Amino acid sequence: MEQVFIYDTTLRDGSQAEGINFSVEDKMRILQKLDEFGVHYIECGWPGANPKDTILFERLRKIKTQNAKIVAFGATRKAGKKAHEDKQVENLLKSGAKVITVFGKSWDFHVTHAIGTTLEENLDMVYETVSYLKKHVEEVIFDAEHFFDGYRHNESYAFKVLEAAFQAGADWIVLCDTNGGTLPNEVYEITKKVVQKFPQARVGIHAHNDSDTAVANSLMAVLAGARQVHGTINGLGERTGNANLCSIIPNLQLKLGFSVVPSQNLKKLTELAHFVSEISNTPLPKNMPYVGESAFTHKAGVHASAVMKRSETYEHIDPSLVGNRRKVTVSDLSGRSNILYKLREMGLEVDDKSPELIKLLEKIKELEKEGYHFEAAEASFELLCKRHFGLVKNYFDLDAYRVLIARRSTDLSPVSEATVRLYVEDIKEHTAALGNGPVSALDRALRKALEEFYPSLKDVQLIDYKVRIVNESEGTSAKVRVLIESTDGRRKWGTVGVSENIIEASWIALTDSLVYKLLKDEEEGIM
Amino acid sequence: MEQVFIYDTTLRDGSQAEGINFSVEDKMRILQKLDEFGVHYIECGWPGANPKDTILFERLRKIKTQNAKIVAFGATRKAGKKAHEDKQVENLLKSGAKVITVFGKSWDFHVTHAIGTTLEENLDMVYETVSYLKKHVEEVIFDAEHFFDGYRHNESYAFKVLEAAFQAGADWIVLCDTNGGTLPNEVYEITKKVVQKFPQARVGIHAHNDSDTAVANSLMAVLAGARQVHGTINGLGERTGNANLCSIIPNLQLKLGFSVVPSQNLKKLTELAHFVSEISNTPLPKNMPYVGESAFTHKAGVHASAVMKRSETYEHIDPSLVGNRRKVTVSDLSGRSNILYKLREMGLEVDDKSPELIKLLEKIKELEKEGYHFEAAEASFELLCKRHFGLVKNYFDLDAYRVLIARRSTDLSPVSEATVRLYVEDIKEHTAALGNGPVSALDRALRKALEEFYPSLKDVQLIDYKVRIVNESEGTSAKVRVLIESTDGRRKWGTVGVSENIIEASWIALTDSLVYKLLKDEEEGIM
Repeated sequence: MEQVFIYDTTLRDGSQAEGINFSVEDKMRILQKLDEFGVHYIECGWPGANPKDTILFERLRKIKTQNAKIVAFGATRKAGKKAHEDKQVENLLKSGAKVITVFGKSWDFHVTHAIGTTLEENLDMVYETVSYLKKHVEEVIFDAEHFFDGYRHNESYAFKVLEAAFQAGADWIVLCDTNGGTLPNEVYEITKKVVQKFPQARVGIHAHNDSDTAVANSLMAVLAGARQVHGTINGLGERTGNANLCSIIPNLQLKLGFSVVPSQNLKKLTELAHFVSEISNTPLPKNMPYVGESAFTHKAGVHASAVMKRSETYEHIDPSLVGNRRKVTVSDLSGRSNILYKLREMGLEVDDKSPELIKLLEKIKELEKEGYHFEAAEASFELLCKRHFGLVKNYFDLDAYRVLIARRSTDLSPVSEATVRLYVEDIKEHTAALGNGPVSALDRALRKALEEFYPSLKDVQLIDYKVRIVNESEGTSAKVRVLIESTDGRRKWGTVGVSENIIEASWIALTDSLVYKLLKDEEEGIM
Repeated sequence: MEQVFIYDTTLRDGSQAEGINFSVEDKMRILQKLDEFGVHYIECGWPGANPKDTILFERLRKIKTQNAKIVAFGATRKAGKKAHEDKQVENLLKSGAKVITVFGKSWDFHVTHAIGTTLEENLDMVYETVSYLKKHVEEVIFDAEHFFDGYRHNESYAFKVLEAAFQAGADWIVLCDTNGGTLPNEVYEITKKVVQKFPQARVGIHAHNDSDTAVANSLMAVLAGARQVHGTINGLGERTGNANLCSIIPNLQLKLGFSVVPSQNLKKLTELAHFVSEISNTPLPKNMPYVGESAFTHKAGVHASAVMKRSETYEHIDPSLVGNRRKVTVSDLSGRSNILYKLREMGLEVDDKSPELIKLLEKIKELEKEGYHFEAAEASFELLCKRHFGLVKNYFDLDAYRVLIARRSTDLSPVSEATVRLYVEDIKEHTAALGNGPVSALDRALRKALEEFYPSLKDVQLIDYKVRIVNESEGTSAKVRVLIESTDGRRKWGTVGVSENIIEASWIALTDSLVYKLLKDEEEGIM
């Protein structure tokens, strides 16, 4: 199988996405994951362009990667300067990276209008920068900025730019669709021409998603002969994002028969996508191909029951190949067979004609109407079902809670105080606690009351808290859905609460989270 | 220019997406928008499959569309029955729709394993259902389910199925990539074969996004000769979604030279996308091509300043062609030139070397470190800048607020009470109000105190309220960012507040919202 090389630019181009701001530590963690996963090149930043990237390269000089080559990114020298006198070029060498990518203009309009120099001088800038760098590092990659636009406007000049880089010794010539405006058929034809014109060169593709075809563009370029693909995890990047490696890699490997990463590594793709989503604090769209939570989710009754019989009927690949899993969700479109599937997952065998099952179905429909959504709150759903069948004991009974938030103009921040009164068996607990906000105050007061009886609750940490208005048209008086994600270090679970009152909704999700922990410990015989 | 017909299935296939549940009213509203926009076919549902769709078709019989044909969707007759005896088929006719789409199996494996009949009987089912329906309605569209998988497994049988539909009089033969596993090069080749084999037939494409190439697949099918494209607004749909019409339409019309919708309608594309996002309560990803908020957003300093000079340098199309707009965002990657651009938008001309500007930049950086994000809160950003230059007067001074939320086990829901003490000029106001939750109680108490002085605040409605944890690893003690969207019927604006305390963060966003309304009214001379 022929090899395609993956060039990840999550840390450089990906960090241009709106709302993303990686710290040096974030970059180091992502880099390590990418290296383990088996990408071939990791573009880490532009040394000298900002202090963060300079510090990063200093740290990188001290580590050794397993698989990936560390790449520094920068521009060709300035017009009218010598390459070795250009500070920006010097910074690339100082970074210590053994592979350097330099971008240069290949669209005549950009040469004359954006950087304001002559077409001839631009060719010299490309040639001299590449050949100078090539003397000092192992590999130089030339990134032809705006190549496709350049080709459309002035084909012969665009080729001259590639020729300059190739003659100067560039190891790769990468065709960059900077504005993302090119469609897959064009990418195929143009890449094919480049490959024919430069049979000795190794060619790459760098696509952006402005036309919603970045993944297809990358695949078509490979089919035309490109062997290096640039992209980012989850398609992070400016505007509409870069080409999404999480789709490109499985498409190349599972469908087009190229060798990309070892197949046991491919099984870590979903984990990698979620990891980058967490570090970048960018929620992963559920419907993201291959790695999204819904990518193999079946909702409609017909599909769900067919998939349970023969999975290939409605699945394009086996989800485990990319480390994802099949999900059958509970929703008002689906019927009894889906609920039975979920109950079976929980270890509950119920007769599909039992009146108890029908009552459970009605209860679920009722809650969904109120605004509940169990898709991201499987723990609450499991509690609902098990409570329905009498399988969850009363760990405590609430008597009352109260939260007060007060702020005077002279205060730096408001005070939040919660009190909780509850019974564990016959023992009354009445506790009070302060918190940074009302939910943390409640959380603390509740644990204060319970930890004496259930010490394992100390391990529970709330790792995510999300709020959504259920009926958006009514503003603050509408219903609120709170999703809480918790962990005890071993497991992770989601719970949900719905109410007109955000505190009550939080309370429901909070108590479900703690009860779920107690139930699971009990089921596993830990308590 | 050659016409491509758009077949929208947002209301049918789109409604299969996880978390979507359209009411009859929602469907009617979306249908009206789609019709105004100019799609050619609107698939509304499966009559008889559920009570909602039955009611919908009853209502549809009473209305007249301007542009679009109403389509009812259903299956071929059951094995071993006559078409006219099949209740499901009868329901299609009873719906009153003049165009009917029937799907039939074209993958041999599905015939024998999913519906469990013979290959021969399946051909009869297709032929008889299409020819029976064709006698009663104007147009019959045959949807060849799993066509691409069928073609790969048993090419000759897949063609026999198309042949049966064509011979029976189907007006369109639509190739459906049901599992979404096919790549663009294959779609092109296979569609080309179909077009060559059936030169008399009109061919369509129905793609799903499981390989992240649904848009490209649709385009490649059109390039191979298909002239009807199925898809949904925003790519809504099961698993990874259907082909996104919001990308397909501009690609076909602006780039491939087909005629799709009138160009003045294309300018409403962004509005349509946001409308469907709101009705379906599915937030539109910011990075969605063409219609997303970030699709034409420039963040990095170099790009932003080049775009300001000549927009084609970094934009693949003029955003106004699809009703979107260019945005330059404020972020720590961007420098002075972006802030100056924003200030100019607000009508503030500031010297780019003034010390006040530098102070403002520092203030913004400080707030961003604290967790502020102004990208979705332009009103708060405008207030920040104008306050910095002394252009916002003190409409009121807060003295104190207090919120109490209490619930006893015997209460149906908690009580929320807020008190606010503030000064308008020298007059002290001390108000109290109840609310459905703490934020609505605060909102009411605040308005109670202010409306006497500023009656136009009565027009302000909060239409969205979002909460996000800024530092996800610390659970409920982490910082909270609240985004509020408000409207006064004429304008819409977003404000933001950040605090460890959700109530305080809400308070900041809430007061900014009201102050922004007062400022705008004043600037426009309404007060």
